[in-house]
Amino acid sequence: MTLHDAIARLAELNDDPAAAGITREVYTPTYQAALAWVAERMQAAGMATRVDAFGNLWGRWEGTDPSAPRVVTGSHVDTTLNAGRYDGVVGVLGAIEAVRAMRRLGIRPRRSVEVVVWAGEEPRFGTGCIGSRMATGELGRDDLDRLSDRDGTSLAEALRAAGFDPDRLEDARVAPERVHALVELHIEQGAVLEARGEQIGVVTAIAAPHDLRLTLRGAATHAGATPMALRRDALAGAAEVVLALERLAREAGSAATVGTVGVMRVAPGAINVVPGEVSLDVDVRDSDVGARERVVDLLLAEAGAIAARRRLELEATPIVEDVPVTCDERIVAAARDACLRLGLAHREMVSGAYHDAMILGRQVPVGMIFVPSAGGISHHPDEHTDAADIERGVQVLARTLVRLAE
Amino acid sequence: MTLHDAIARLAELNDDPAAAGITREVYTPTYQAALAWVAERMQAAGMATRVDAFGNLWGRWEGTDPSAPRVVTGSHVDTTLNAGRYDGVVGVLGAIEAVRAMRRLGIRPRRSVEVVVWAGEEPRFGTGCIGSRMATGELGRDDLDRLSDRDGTSLAEALRAAGFDPDRLEDARVAPERVHALVELHIEQGAVLEARGEQIGVVTAIAAPHDLRLTLRGAATHAGATPMALRRDALAGAAEVVLALERLAREAGSAATVGTVGVMRVAPGAINVVPGEVSLDVDVRDSDVGARERVVDLLLAEAGAIAARRRLELEATPIVEDVPVTCDERIVAAARDACLRLGLAHREMVSGAYHDAMILGRQVPVGMIFVPSAGGISHHPDEHTDAADIERGVQVLARTLVRLAE
Repeated sequence: MTLHDAIARLAELNDDPAAAGITREVYTPTYQAALAWVAERMQAAGMATRVDAFGNLWGRWEGTDPSAPRVVTGSHVDTTLNAGRYDGVVGVLGAIEAVRAMRRLGIRPRRSVEVVVWAGEEPRFGTGCIGSRMATGELGRDDLDRLSDRDGTSLAEALRAAGFDPDRLEDARVAPERVHALVELHIEQGAVLEARGEQIGVVTAIAAPHDLRLTLRGAATHAGATPMALRRDALAGAAEVVLALERLAREAGSAATVGTVGVMRVAPGAINVVPGEVSLDVDVRDSDVGARERVVDLLLAEAGAIAARRRLELEATPIVEDVPVTCDERIVAAARDACLRLGLAHREMVSGAYHDAMILGRQVPVGMIFVPSAGGISHHPDEHTDAADIERGVQVLARTLVRLAE
Repeated sequence: MTLHDAIARLAELNDDPAAAGITREVYTPTYQAALAWVAERMQAAGMATRVDAFGNLWGRWEGTDPSAPRVVTGSHVDTTLNAGRYDGVVGVLGAIEAVRAMRRLGIRPRRSVEVVVWAGEEPRFGTGCIGSRMATGELGRDDLDRLSDRDGTSLAEALRAAGFDPDRLEDARVAPERVHALVELHIEQGAVLEARGEQIGVVTAIAAPHDLRLTLRGAATHAGATPMALRRDALAGAAEVVLALERLAREAGSAATVGTVGVMRVAPGAINVVPGEVSLDVDVRDSDVGARERVVDLLLAEAGAIAARRRLELEATPIVEDVPVTCDERIVAAARDACLRLGLAHREMVSGAYHDAMILGRQVPVGMIFVPSAGGISHHPDEHTDAADIERGVQVLARTLVRLAE
């Protein structure tokens, strides 16, 4: 079975087969079936497999020095609702393919190479990357009862239903000193490589989001009976905030800063009523935390001035503030050298999306390899990466692993 | 029973007594009970009552020349959901009170004076002012099956359930040549009178809305992985449109032009996705249709330029385009003189909200008298007008009716 065929086969494990896309949330029976199928592929590639107490799947190809800190690669196979077939899957099936290719070439690495499938990278339980957060100890037993999905099922209940033991979580901890390097192959989920005609992105840093909610409150008055000069229009104020964020992200951060308002709620939401309350969910990201916080601070100051000028109340509520990760220079160099030897057009770039590698990067040396995403589309049935692009990503990953496992 | 007590009594006829506000939609049993109670008050004030085939209630105080075209006054007693107690009700109970006051003073008008309660001013069936639209012939039998409420009940079904005959609608037609003048007393639903410390608004024109929906389509890409320069952010474009409308309403229309975006839908609506599609419901109003259309035309041109610059698609869909009404000069003069004689601080003003009087104004001479709305709040439990302000409005209405009925 080719890698392309394997991706198609995994896409058949889908809880919403009538939809155009794929729905395979962590800990569901469909997800467990996918995990079992991936474990078989690992075994067929010569790896010993084990599933830890949190549902992370590990496939191990033992090196000539089993006591040396190992090299880890992998990603995830859970999806959002009605998603694409490449996000995460490329990094899992591609890693197995890379191991197979290395074995076919007769390579015997000194360090063991492990392929990991992290549980729950997508936020079924509100927080993403729960498998890697459990591996680093960032999540604990208390969180299993606190986190729940949209149906109210707690993470602890979901774990039990999938056959895991929520009281044996230390089994899922990864000792940082036992990991030499972690590399994750992933689709870009952006359109930078496609726009520049490049084949590989070598990630130098993983940006982290600072998310917050801004709420503007004015007066919900009659759209016909309230002259322009007497209005306290929360939506007009919010529109100024949206444009201020766009300008600040372009001008006040680093070249890589991005700022987005992805969610806006307008109340009361009637055509003949001036909006009295608008909330905006703001996401600012950068690998340079100083640049990111400069944009957030300036945005808060501008929003305050906009609110004061328009006689609106402004409230800012924190959502999340993650820490960016700088990729390990040895891993970046190994991936860059692989591209040069293979003659691939590549770019050193920042990952704007976050990944399990960002969580692990707080404790162990990490790196990432990107392949292009058509149109930058992700989390959508139209998500697509050409088979040839994926093959090139696997080649770069394999050569990078060979170097790191020396 | 004082007028104040009567307003409080009517407020008890409420389909949602647990809520802070009043819900009394047209043709419900609660509404029918309110209508019966109002009819009793008309009879107690010496009027002969009749309910036409569409549910409009008429109370008649016959003049000394019953064949002379009559003077009509009145408003509505239906409400939106969880609304206030003054909208419409002040114009109905206040009109009955004005008739009572005139009779107490021994006045015998030449023209008959009729108090009307229009059915369905609020848009239970999507379209507002259905009672007055039926009276002018703007609505017909076909519309009764076409229009339905949020539960899918058609207007024809609702009429039958309330005991009316949808096939006898000609009974509800008002012959324009039989109406000398129509005056509606109403709360302002805006904050102009309050802001200026004035007691009465004499309406010179009723603005009419031009409503349309603008939809902007870009690309729903990853908020982290899409650099600012590669975005096609529909929300950023929509924000520019909101601010363009605000500026154009202030600068490009007349002094009375108002422009509002009251509804905005942002899709897909996730904090980590750049908005791919945003729709805005736009409402532009003026009594000067040329000024209004100038603002609409300039807005469409600016929205087109914004969309082109941002590589967004723009679609404009019509919603409604009503015709403004100029109030009759004799009615305006009568109301103005009444204010002068009573020593009331008054203002000649445009009604930004529309009313049954706007519908009738297409066929007969109309005028309106406004009393202040606290904070401009309406369609809300906090809607409030002081009893003394309502009394002053009734005095102005009575004197205006005396003059018109001569």
